[in-house]
Amino acid sequence: MQVAYLLFDRFTALDVTGPYEVLSRLPDAASAFVAERVGSIANESGTLTLTASHTLAEVRAPQILVVPGGLGTRVLLEHEPLLDWLREVHEETEWTTSVCTGSLLLAAAGLLNDVPATTHWLERDLLAKLGARPTPERVVEQGKIITAAGVSSGIDMALRLVERTHGELAAQAIQLSIEYDPEPPFDAGSPEKASASVVELVRAASAARA
Amino acid sequence: MQVAYLLFDRFTALDVTGPYEVLSRLPDAASAFVAERVGSIANESGTLTLTASHTLAEVRAPQILVVPGGLGTRVLLEHEPLLDWLREVHEETEWTTSVCTGSLLLAAAGLLNDVPATTHWLERDLLAKLGARPTPERVVEQGKIITAAGVSSGIDMALRLVERTHGELAAQAIQLSIEYDPEPPFDAGSPEKASASVVELVRAASAARA
Repeated sequence: MQVAYLLFDRFTALDVTGPYEVLSRLPDAASAFVAERVGSIANESGTLTLTASHTLAEVRAPQILVVPGGLGTRVLLEHEPLLDWLREVHEETEWTTSVCTGSLLLAAAGLLNDVPATTHWLERDLLAKLGARPTPERVVEQGKIITAAGVSSGIDMALRLVERTHGELAAQAIQLSIEYDPEPPFDAGSPEKASASVVELVRAASAARA
Repeated sequence: MQVAYLLFDRFTALDVTGPYEVLSRLPDAASAFVAERVGSIANESGTLTLTASHTLAEVRAPQILVVPGGLGTRVLLEHEPLLDWLREVHEETEWTTSVCTGSLLLAAAGLLNDVPATTHWLERDLLAKLGARPTPERVVEQGKIITAAGVSSGIDMALRLVERTHGELAAQAIQLSIEYDPEPPFDAGSPEKASASVVELVRAASAARA
């Protein structure tokens, strides 16, 4: 079972590695890190580098596709070679998934037209402009497409995906093997729960970053 | 503020990238991926590769040290050049932290003698043999040392660390920016909560892997 993780300049590290840490523990999973070029690809802060093992041309029919988000998604929303690849590969996948603003790429490729989907909470408006119907849910399953909300949600998404592909026992075993019994120190993980001042701080920092 | 992430052959990806995704969002954080050699370092499944940016000799006094776990820890428990580096760097840090079996390395270096600490639940006995007092807690703060339990616990640890270094507002803002509002699909994330059959399955898989 080939699991392909898309990489591009300025991806978000945890969007990739969260699902990877879950899915790569499936005994039959073969991981492929796919990008327009093989070699080192730096994340959005430029300090963490993952290695792309395959070019887009080398990966045509993965069973599972994981599309991460990151600041780098914005410059790819009209990048037809990548969007074409997403459209073609999606025809072949059993599951097409995204984390965070990875759903913007799926939407830009026309794969989310008028269906419910999620993304990082700061980019719900952009997701709507690209044709999807944004929801605040953490994981949204729509046919064979699963979109997940911001960054850390990819872990929840991947565990749900394992439940679908390999059953509940396998999903629970992986959850236990990564000791995923979260204890967030605050209840501030969504814009609906965080205080107004925290939401404003993150909005301002995000605007400054972009 | 230099944050050093130790890398070694066969590390666990999420042990590194969980804390990284939190700590690298601090505006004053400079990330250094440190290993015995610079360049590509493969994780325990051999399919994910991070790039070490600094040698051990180049990083002598990071403010924060993050020691991940992974199958690769076991062959390093008597590797004096690395243990010496841990001892020396720990003298200089403001915070010395570990995720998962990273605490085995801290213990092997003599930094956890007779103090409470945590690790991956499968390795509590080994942690005790190395001189620490294992506890089942998810995050254990002991002076300037913080140990975290298995794999995914590094996210919780890092958010608690940000609370210490930059205050509650900063920690909440990062929690919101990575949308850390976990929804594990099952309550199977610790050996105390998972069913006996799931615990047995993970024990058997771990034994086969090692």
